[in-house]
Amino acid sequence: MKLGVVGLGRMGSNMRERLREKGHDVVGYDPNPDVSDVRSLEALVEALPAPRAVWVMVPAGAPTRQVIEQLSRLLAPGDVVVDGGNSRFTDDKVNAALLAEHDVRYVDCGVSGGVWGRQNGYALMAGGHEDDIARLLPIFDALRPEGDRAYSFVHAGGIGAGHYAKMVHNGIEYGLMQAYAEGYELLAAEESIADVPAVLRAWSQGTVVRSWLLDLLVQALSEDPGLGSISGYTEDSGEGRWTVEEAIAHAVPAPVISAALFARFASRQDDSPAMKAVSALRRQFGGHAVRSAEPVEVA
Amino acid sequence: MKLGVVGLGRMGSNMRERLREKGHDVVGYDPNPDVSDVRSLEALVEALPAPRAVWVMVPAGAPTRQVIEQLSRLLAPGDVVVDGGNSRFTDDKVNAALLAEHDVRYVDCGVSGGVWGRQNGYALMAGGHEDDIARLLPIFDALRPEGDRAYSFVHAGGIGAGHYAKMVHNGIEYGLMQAYAEGYELLAAEESIADVPAVLRAWSQGTVVRSWLLDLLVQALSEDPGLGSISGYTEDSGEGRWTVEEAIAHAVPAPVISAALFARFASRQDDSPAMKAVSALRRQFGGHAVRSAEPVEVA
Amino acid sequence: MKLGVVGLGRMGSNMRERLREKGHDVVGYDPNPDVSDVRSLEALVEALPAPRAVWVMVPAGAPTRQVIEQLSRLLAPGDVVVDGGNSRFTDDKVNAALLAEHDVRYVDCGVSGGVWGRQNGYALMAGGHEDDIARLLPIFDALRPEGDRAYSFVHAGGIGAGHYAKMVHNGIEYGLMQAYAEGYELLAAEESIADVPAVLRAWSQGTVVRSWLLDLLVQALSEDPGLGSISGYTEDSGEGRWTVEEAIAHAVPAPVISAALFARFASRQDDSPAMKAVSALRRQFGGHAVRSAEPVEVA
Amino acid sequence: MKLGVVGLGRMGSNMRERLREKGHDVVGYDPNPDVSDVRSLEALVEALPAPRAVWVMVPAGAPTRQVIEQLSRLLAPGDVVVDGGNSRFTDDKVNAALLAEHDVRYVDCGVSGGVWGRQNGYALMAGGHEDDIARLLPIFDALRPEGDRAYSFVHAGGIGAGHYAKMVHNGIEYGLMQAYAEGYELLAAEESIADVPAVLRAWSQGTVVRSWLLDLLVQALSEDPGLGSISGYTEDSGEGRWTVEEAIAHAVPAPVISAALFARFASRQDDSPAMKAVSALRRQFGGHAVRSAEPVEVA
Repeated sequence: MKLGVVGLGRMGSNMRERLREKGHDVVGYDPNPDVSDVRSLEALVEALPAPRAVWVMVPAGAPTRQVIEQLSRLLAPGDVVVDGGNSRFTDDKVNAALLAEHDVRYVDCGVSGGVWGRQNGYALMAGGHEDDIARLLPIFDALRPEGDRAYSFVHAGGIGAGHYAKMVHNGIEYGLMQAYAEGYELLAAEESIADVPAVLRAWSQGTVVRSWLLDLLVQALSEDPGLGSISGYTEDSGEGRWTVEEAIAHAVPAPVISAALFARFASRQDDSPAMKAVSALRRQFGGHAVRSAEPVEVA
Repeated sequence: MKLGVVGLGRMGSNMRERLREKGHDVVGYDPNPDVSDVRSLEALVEALPAPRAVWVMVPAGAPTRQVIEQLSRLLAPGDVVVDGGNSRFTDDKVNAALLAEHDVRYVDCGVSGGVWGRQNGYALMAGGHEDDIARLLPIFDALRPEGDRAYSFVHAGGIGAGHYAKMVHNGIEYGLMQAYAEGYELLAAEESIADVPAVLRAWSQGTVVRSWLLDLLVQALSEDPGLGSISGYTEDSGEGRWTVEEAIAHAVPAPVISAALFARFASRQDDSPAMKAVSALRRQFGGHAVRSAEPVEVA
Repeated sequence: MKLGVVGLGRMGSNMRERLREKGHDVVGYDPNPDVSDVRSLEALVEALPAPRAVWVMVPAGAPTRQVIEQLSRLLAPGDVVVDGGNSRFTDDKVNAALLAEHDVRYVDCGVSGGVWGRQNGYALMAGGHEDDIARLLPIFDALRPEGDRAYSFVHAGGIGAGHYAKMVHNGIEYGLMQAYAEGYELLAAEESIADVPAVLRAWSQGTVVRSWLLDLLVQALSEDPGLGSISGYTEDSGEGRWTVEEAIAHAVPAPVISAALFARFASRQDDSPAMKAVSALRRQFGGHAVRSAEPVEVA
Repeated sequence: MKLGVVGLGRMGSNMRERLREKGHDVVGYDPNPDVSDVRSLEALVEALPAPRAVWVMVPAGAPTRQVIEQLSRLLAPGDVVVDGGNSRFTDDKVNAALLAEHDVRYVDCGVSGGVWGRQNGYALMAGGHEDDIARLLPIFDALRPEGDRAYSFVHAGGIGAGHYAKMVHNGIEYGLMQAYAEGYELLAAEESIADVPAVLRAWSQGTVVRSWLLDLLVQALSEDPGLGSISGYTEDSGEGRWTVEEAIAHAVPAPVISAALFARFASRQDDSPAMKAVSALRRQFGGHAVRSAEPVEVA
């Protein structure tokens, strides 16, 4: 089928290529003329036959909202917009309402797979009305890995459910990464372990902890066995925060996901104000900070 | 090669079968005559040609120690014993010393794969002297999945390093399981998610969180979509505790693995003494426990 | 000075009494005629000389908003409203704007002290314009404990800063309570400790951990040494959640406060969905749940 | 009564002074002749009338063990030794056994109060036989704050119980300090809070969170409002680790105390190996580390 794609960064352009390889007719628009197929959003809309389908793949938040607003004015009743970015699920109801004023349909779709998706296929979590999902199935089927649809695609629920599922996916991802990372650090701290990368590589097959993330860590360690080239400064991209906030909203204990999130926060601090306060307290009550050679300090 | 196996529970008997299928000559001993090939440990030792190799696969702690002590008296200089159970790495030095008094060699080997290992192969983490490892390679190769040895076997270091690596593997496993579990609970708590098992199944391919554990959770949910038949009461089997203790000994932060461990402890409490103390405090300072309909309670 | 107080639940009526004892002229209104001094909010406003000061002490959220809206219509330019409830700081800007339409001033004031405040005095954290704070100082001074004002009162900043400070105060409170509770549970689990309540009582003087919360726990244990009459089911009243959400918003690691919050969530679950998932996984990969007496289970 | 004190560092010499002020006859020994009353441990023993009482106040571990061993050879049957240092409770049984070979009695005593104890008195948690405790009561009463003995002294149980109680006391202390520290950091991160030290000072009276630790933090902030002179690098002195290990041994969830401990570990890392692993993973799966300005990155 014919599809418009708005946003041709790494993800958008990779998806355009995968869709074309699978036989779909994709028209892409990006402000960067080097990658764009058309000169404007208006041109993209004109290039599509009604009822149109437009997949938006731009950064979450204001950029996505801006594109949705522009599309609401350009599209016609019966057209459908898919937000495939990492939007917060709370944005979806607003986006849908904006488009609904013009009788334009809306589907949210969480996309997982990163740069590997172009080759392996992307996992897709969609939210919206069943009719709209049905209409987009050829696109979903082309984007996802081949094989049984149920293993890489889900119609998770109404509008917002796709991004909700993707948010939880990413929250879990935070926890998984931190679990491997703690194990890695412990192995690296234990002198009896002769070759830490070799231990992790040996977990690749047959173990309970085998996973794609483990494969990636093995790959990273094969490129840089001591990770000497990599800083521990670690960004977080929003979904981890939202997951913990949703856990709080639902009174769901989330000690692991929140610990993983806080570890990222801490990784970005040169010196922790909290730990300065702890140090200050220790100095106050016991003179611990003095580090003198006195026989005993009891507090 | 010819190998003695002591302990023919599920793991031991599965490993015996896999080794036989791969062409090895295995003599197994178990106190249970229904599964044992010989009548006694003495008979097992007699059935093996020198230098002998005996794989011990009995519960960690006292049972393993008892078998090691018996073998130390029965075996001859140059024989080798492998402890393939879930022993704590600190046991290995003691076991090795017990055997060394009789010039018997010792290798510790962490084994991962559970009931699936018989078919898929087991991942193996071995500790000990290089010569002993080399001698046992045919056994290791038969037990592990086919393919590149480095992806399912590691000589992790000296005596104890194999069990150390396995301990960390299991500590990571605790964290991974809890991460998925928190995500599952959050999805189940969110009313907009129409079909929680379907969401997890859709993560099976193409996602960042795909893993064998996820596959197992998908399988469990396909058998019992609401997990209604399963209690949240969750045992822990030692390695999680040891991992946190090692993290403490090495001053390695382990917030995720420890949170996963503590969640298991809490799952086994009918009522938490700690939370009774918190409730008691709330009652003291603000009358919170009274749950009255008064206009405002401020503390 | 003359002050109107809206909301005469336990907190409001206690504060009315303390203010009267300190010589202030308080007119209180409550829907409950048994405790109200006047028949209506209108009557309360009429009873006050301009420029009026009205202290609102009703539950946070909708009830407080409703009273603010009513007051905005009843009060005159130059009057001032204080929200002394446990409102979220984000409500304050809205409340202030509602009143500002009528040129009515607004001050937010976090109040700590609970049922003990009537006798001991309340600690006060105020937010708003300096002029409004200055005008209310006689009230603040009567409510707080005697002595140096700086030890029980702070003008924390602009509108919302008072409730922000109170929110953080309560978040800290969660962490403190959980720390004592964990220690209590550990002492109770250790058979060598002969008398747990006696140990905690002995910490009342001279120790690093002495505090008012410890005094309350000692008191609770003197009333019920094993806390047998108290359930571990523990509510949370909002500020703990908001504190963690603010920590997330500011990228501040808050592992202790969040752990304390999650422990409360968990205390309210009969069976944890997350731990059911962990149990289900264990059953899948290793048959752990079977609890058989087999020689060894390795996963 | 007459008491020997071994170890005259800050704690030991402060305790000597307090005991002398209370009328006791104290003979102190320290390797440092500037502070020692006698030239040798032998001289100290000779200076005491039988049955002797010797209070050991030297660093936990090897130094304390060494003094116990020396005393076991110098003392006579019926003499009593008190270990007042921060020894692990597991050391106490060994110390007691060493002395019991010579019919010398042993009492362990956790001491809290730090440098403030000389003036305010120390809280004491003692373990051992009732007769030995009774004999030492005049010393305990002189060391502790005046007033009801139950509020600053406890005979916690048999040998080791005193240090066990002190260990838990310190574990709680870790949690309390971290709770205040997280709150402090959040206040410092929030621009609407005009004066963070003033907010904490205002909690000194009337609040739920008032405590001696809060008083110390207020004092520290009055000396250095931004804690600019203090590093966040925070040592831990053993009891926090032991508390978490005991929590694990008793299957007691300790998320707050362990989080506080791990925060100290993390504070001492220039760059976290775990977070390097997380960063490496992010780079692998999504090119997150590249920080490019591309329209969207989805993982």
